[in-house]
Amino acid sequence: MKPKSFILKGDICFSLDKDTLVTYEEHFLVCINGVSAGIFKALPQEYAALEVLDYSGKLIIPGLTDLHIHAPQYTFRGIGMDDELLSWLNNRAFPEEGRYSDTAYALEAYQSFAEAMQASATTRACIFATVHVPATLILMDLMEKTGIRTLVGKVNMDRNAPDYLVEKSSEQSAADTLAWLEACAGRYENVSPIVTPRFIPSCSDELLRSLHGIQQKYALPVQSHLSENTAEIELVGQLCSDAEFYGDAYDRFGLFGKDAPTIMAHCVYSGEKEILRMKENGVYIAHCPQSNTNIASGVAPVRKFVDMGVRCGLGSDVAGGTTESIFRAMTDAVQMSKIRWRLQDSTLRPLTFEEAFYLGTKGGGGFFGKVGSFETGYEFDAVVIDDAPPKHFHGITLRERLEKFAYISSGHEIAHKFVSGKQLF
Amino acid sequence: MKPKSFILKGDICFSLDKDTLVTYEEHFLVCINGVSAGIFKALPQEYAALEVLDYSGKLIIPGLTDLHIHAPQYTFRGIGMDDELLSWLNNRAFPEEGRYSDTAYALEAYQSFAEAMQASATTRACIFATVHVPATLILMDLMEKTGIRTLVGKVNMDRNAPDYLVEKSSEQSAADTLAWLEACAGRYENVSPIVTPRFIPSCSDELLRSLHGIQQKYALPVQSHLSENTAEIELVGQLCSDAEFYGDAYDRFGLFGKDAPTIMAHCVYSGEKEILRMKENGVYIAHCPQSNTNIASGVAPVRKFVDMGVRCGLGSDVAGGTTESIFRAMTDAVQMSKIRWRLQDSTLRPLTFEEAFYLGTKGGGGFFGKVGSFETGYEFDAVVIDDAPPKHFHGITLRERLEKFAYISSGHEIAHKFVSGKQLF
Repeated sequence: MKPKSFILKGDICFSLDKDTLVTYEEHFLVCINGVSAGIFKALPQEYAALEVLDYSGKLIIPGLTDLHIHAPQYTFRGIGMDDELLSWLNNRAFPEEGRYSDTAYALEAYQSFAEAMQASATTRACIFATVHVPATLILMDLMEKTGIRTLVGKVNMDRNAPDYLVEKSSEQSAADTLAWLEACAGRYENVSPIVTPRFIPSCSDELLRSLHGIQQKYALPVQSHLSENTAEIELVGQLCSDAEFYGDAYDRFGLFGKDAPTIMAHCVYSGEKEILRMKENGVYIAHCPQSNTNIASGVAPVRKFVDMGVRCGLGSDVAGGTTESIFRAMTDAVQMSKIRWRLQDSTLRPLTFEEAFYLGTKGGGGFFGKVGSFETGYEFDAVVIDDAPPKHFHGITLRERLEKFAYISSGHEIAHKFVSGKQLF
Repeated sequence: MKPKSFILKGDICFSLDKDTLVTYEEHFLVCINGVSAGIFKALPQEYAALEVLDYSGKLIIPGLTDLHIHAPQYTFRGIGMDDELLSWLNNRAFPEEGRYSDTAYALEAYQSFAEAMQASATTRACIFATVHVPATLILMDLMEKTGIRTLVGKVNMDRNAPDYLVEKSSEQSAADTLAWLEACAGRYENVSPIVTPRFIPSCSDELLRSLHGIQQKYALPVQSHLSENTAEIELVGQLCSDAEFYGDAYDRFGLFGKDAPTIMAHCVYSGEKEILRMKENGVYIAHCPQSNTNIASGVAPVRKFVDMGVRCGLGSDVAGGTTESIFRAMTDAVQMSKIRWRLQDSTLRPLTFEEAFYLGTKGGGGFFGKVGSFETGYEFDAVVIDDAPPKHFHGITLRERLEKFAYISSGHEIAHKFVSGKQLF
């Protein structure tokens, strides 16, 4: 289906840059062949023939981008939160991921994930599956049908994981990855594969070397985890004693942004050198504030990322995070930055709502190209929000209305969603 | 209307103490004359004649208690969150509170607050109004109709507040308070007055002295704020140079728990002496984690309160907090305690979900008597929750289901609510 040309009418908000949130009450937003053609108070004559979808009184914002989410963990979100990363992995995440060897289970569980993602305000997402090829293809099939644009990764892990989940060798892990890539070649319009070594502790050097080769052969992007937790970082230090810092352990294998678009989730404890390397290499940081809180990892220095000009977006990180809502990720990012500023480092001032909104839209959207804004030439990802109740009192600005919605949204107010010019609902 | 006797059937969860959350799947919960008469797997013969309300498959928990909420701030929750306490008061809270001199505005605005409270899982609340007597009576009239049991306070403030809001003298403030108490005497079944000096910075010594007299004459409880923010504490130190610590400034006037049931909100920076004094005096701490985060105050040492055996419950503190949901307050309390443990003081281990649930039910409920549990003899406050979607996978326990609900609740799943044996909906 060719992207349509049409016009939305309503109360429009989007970011130009991290400090500049622009708002247009009762304006027209023009989509031409799936791309934004601008915002107008009065509709120009040249667009007079296009259909106008009148969403007067509703908020219209760019679709949100989730740079980091684990699809198989959706089933147990909100459970077992009184735990820390490494034991949480062993008690909760790994046992659940093990169940996805059963394709019947995968179909049922991933269906509930796909439904939630479709109903959300998210239009782009980078998703971890599990090690299992058949289940990963099931997830990709389901995500394809949602119409959301996603990158989905079969996970690689050949060490330091339970027997029921660990891949038998780096060769088998690589062979499965190739089989998976062959199986999904040409199969999807909305879904693409992404190379997904889980993290250094669960990937041998041989595996990382193979994955780099696969990445090069297929020209794929990469996603992984970085510097989330102090115990994890210590373990990486032992496993890779010759690496300068955690991220360098990826970089030595060409899996840290130089050779391919790359996302690193968390970066709670990334030091100056690691952050600078990410900046140089163009790595995207997926900032996951709720997960970092729930698993008691800490608070990432997102103010530093932003001020240093490192590419950065938000991740829900279900099920370290309990919700797929990127609105919640925005407000968590603001809240946690305040607590970090107050308790840890008063030189890194809190994020503003403008900055958090930018991260959840244009910041993370950049990983998908010209995504996350309504500036002319951007892909037309839009969500229409019915924030009618609660009642607003006396002269609330559109910017205030957006902030309020982000804080009090239950996640169920998304009335319509468009991805690259196609209306999903 | 006399409280009824009846039986609820469903999946029942409640706290015995802070560490003990008990759960009963598909059990009967008996209410006799508004009081819990116990939980049964099979219904005893003596109750066979009572009506059974069959909520099979739904969660049944004690009603939640909100120990601290500002009704007039409900209108602007979620707005202006990029601000700190003292400037937030001047930019947001005070200007809005000033509008409640207009009774027409008060009626409309308080109506939206009352509706939200009624729909919530909260069955008991301690509420700040504004300085205005007519508006406070309007709020009490509206809260009376909700059926929730509330304590509502006309606020007192005779200094350090804007001209449009400050009371003209301590005499006028006291006289207005007396007029308010006369007006509400005998008027309500569900609402009672509570003495409400805003906080030390806005109350002169004369006013505090008068309020103590009024408290004694009418045998009223007391609510105020304590040790929320470092700038506020510094100001109190200047205003009351002879007080040992912030709380001592209340204690010198008999407004710190010795003479009356008393709630102090926040206590983020309460030191050892202040905490001990609260324990000795039986003060209830209203722990308001979201507000303390939003206004960048810090994180209260709630682990210390709990371990030292200080009475403690949760407060939503709208509009420092953005939502009236005490489920959100529970999960915020857990999350913020993790961050405090990680960033500030590793000797104070994080709260468990059990502890947070206790604080939101029996902990805070204690301020209202035998409230917040289904143990025999407790007032029958219950909420029935329809958590049917999302789908649960494989052997989730009832305790896990409750935790999950607390984390992912949108606040709109409350199917039925009972207060002291009366069904509100």
